[in-house]
Amino acid sequence: MATVADRLFNFSAGPAVLPLPVLERAREELLSLPGVGMSVLEISHRSKAFDEILDRTLADLGRLIGIGDDHELILLQGGASLQFSMVPLNLLQGQSGAADYIVTGTWGRGGLKEARRIGSAHVAWDGEATGYDRLPQADEIKLSDHPAYVHITSNETIQGVQWQRLPAVAAAPLVCDTSSDFLSRPIDLSRFGLLYACAQKNAGIAGVTAVAIRKDLLERSADSLPAMLDYRTFVAKGSRPNTPPVFAIYILGLVCEWLLNEVGGLEQIAAQNAAKAAVLYDTLDASGGFYRGHAAEACRSTMNVTFRLPSADLEQAFLAEAAGHGLSDLKGHRSVGGIRASVYNAMPEAGVLALRDFMHDFKNARG
Amino acid sequence: MATVADRLFNFSAGPAVLPLPVLERAREELLSLPGVGMSVLEISHRSKAFDEILDRTLADLGRLIGIGDDHELILLQGGASLQFSMVPLNLLQGQSGAADYIVTGTWGRGGLKEARRIGSAHVAWDGEATGYDRLPQADEIKLSDHPAYVHITSNETIQGVQWQRLPAVAAAPLVCDTSSDFLSRPIDLSRFGLLYACAQKNAGIAGVTAVAIRKDLLERSADSLPAMLDYRTFVAKGSRPNTPPVFAIYILGLVCEWLLNEVGGLEQIAAQNAAKAAVLYDTLDASGGFYRGHAAEACRSTMNVTFRLPSADLEQAFLAEAAGHGLSDLKGHRSVGGIRASVYNAMPEAGVLALRDFMHDFKNARG
Repeated sequence: MATVADRLFNFSAGPAVLPLPVLERAREELLSLPGVGMSVLEISHRSKAFDEILDRTLADLGRLIGIGDDHELILLQGGASLQFSMVPLNLLQGQSGAADYIVTGTWGRGGLKEARRIGSAHVAWDGEATGYDRLPQADEIKLSDHPAYVHITSNETIQGVQWQRLPAVAAAPLVCDTSSDFLSRPIDLSRFGLLYACAQKNAGIAGVTAVAIRKDLLERSADSLPAMLDYRTFVAKGSRPNTPPVFAIYILGLVCEWLLNEVGGLEQIAAQNAAKAAVLYDTLDASGGFYRGHAAEACRSTMNVTFRLPSADLEQAFLAEAAGHGLSDLKGHRSVGGIRASVYNAMPEAGVLALRDFMHDFKNARG
Repeated sequence: MATVADRLFNFSAGPAVLPLPVLERAREELLSLPGVGMSVLEISHRSKAFDEILDRTLADLGRLIGIGDDHELILLQGGASLQFSMVPLNLLQGQSGAADYIVTGTWGRGGLKEARRIGSAHVAWDGEATGYDRLPQADEIKLSDHPAYVHITSNETIQGVQWQRLPAVAAAPLVCDTSSDFLSRPIDLSRFGLLYACAQKNAGIAGVTAVAIRKDLLERSADSLPAMLDYRTFVAKGSRPNTPPVFAIYILGLVCEWLLNEVGGLEQIAAQNAAKAAVLYDTLDASGGFYRGHAAEACRSTMNVTFRLPSADLEQAFLAEAAGHGLSDLKGHRSVGGIRASVYNAMPEAGVLALRDFMHDFKNARG
């Protein structure tokens, strides 16, 4: 059986590294859940065993994001990409105002593209002119009159820019794609009309997507919507209108347990994440320009540290040598190139320190 | 660590029992895929490791269902329930004819309901009058003029009726929800315009859905469709337009390997399935009316054996005592009651024989 010692440091942008205790627990239970007599891969989604898993997962996840009486929390399939369509199908269709999009990178642009297929979408700001290396100043954001909602991407996984303070959107519901920084820091859910996140960055594995939606917004959905594209279906059926992705929910539950019981909560993980990211940004800043960070300093992501080297050849060499040191998946997204170190919740400090040391050595040898 | 000895015989209708070699392989590799250094739960969906898993899975699955040049095979999320909407969104919208539905049970009715939200749907036959206990005779099926497609459900999981010979549909594309008998027997793919199946019965775990679609039908999809609801998106991007459900695809791949290499193929599994089902149907038929099968004899499902006992009290006692003998999840669907023994590919013969023996003993004690 493969052991812990075989494991690399995985800097993938997602699916990404998971907490080792989560993997070990999943392995231990894989043939037979304790007291159940079958694998979690085999239990009915209507079984008592899964009732308990789903209830506990929703309770723990709700506790982490501070769910209260104003919001519903549901779990769906299809990833954030399906949310790009479900959000306007439910919240834009039938509304008089446009949907406003603040476009800070590739994923914000993806959401805008799908909204335009559904209804009227307005670009309130777009950072393309500077290669999506920064967020807008408050006075740069031009909202439409009475927008149906305002959409942001809290962390742009590809460019590595992250909102630290939410934009003012007056009375409009703020809708947030928080896929790549979900559960990485505390949030004030009262600020959001809707937020959505796929699990495969900080919260688990690919195949399950969390949505928190303010209850009054559920009234916007038309009865003509396909059942599986209507948020109300998932609210009414407790995230179980059909067979949900049982195993992906089980892993999400284990990650929530780990965050609550071993890490201590989102304040604690946020502090760890800030410290890990600082190690890498300090390395960029102290490199005399050898490593050039992509994001403007005030907009740097604690999740995805993106940077360039002086040449594409050096970047190739960097990636190849890093892999030789057990530092994996550091290649930037194919659309932008360069280097990207994704340092989500489960990336251990040791991985970040190993990358820092490698960056020092590589610069000394090649700089 | 839980062991094989802890496992029950799981007669759940899905998610359902998996082949033990698949579970053992998944457990063995869970901390670290051989030669990869990370868990399959952590690998990037753009990694070489996942390229290999996806390519092999699609090749093996294609081989099992006899994919040729006329069809595309894609993997999606959302279950068969999302297909209830995607089929009419792609194949009915913009067509002049209606979509014809042959309704043989709960799932056929579910598909019809969603088609009606999208366009014109025609009921070509509906078995409700006799509680969905049989399939239509050829002359009972009343197709509309030039239907956009004709939809059937190859096996009704809840009622336990299964098509053994496909209906004649003239030139109309035959669309089939084959969720609960997919990979349980050979199929002639050339007969189908489109077929779809969630994985969690015979093919793996919840969270991935297979669709085979005849290439000419892809031309029907409108450019205005949301990207994630357009079959062409998944064809163009090789089932990877966004992050696919990596682990569910991995398990699907292991199940295909098991079918090809250990079982020997779909002819072999079909023979095993027929033999297992016959043991149970023979037990019903020899019970002197104590156990009454739901489905008419010619329409009996090899997957879901549904039957009643003389009273609801006896059914309760049956379920409780069966559980005490390690025979789990035998309760009929809550909408119809009674008993349902689901005996998918991975249900071992020993489970069926244990159920048979229990049925004999229970009848002798209570009959």
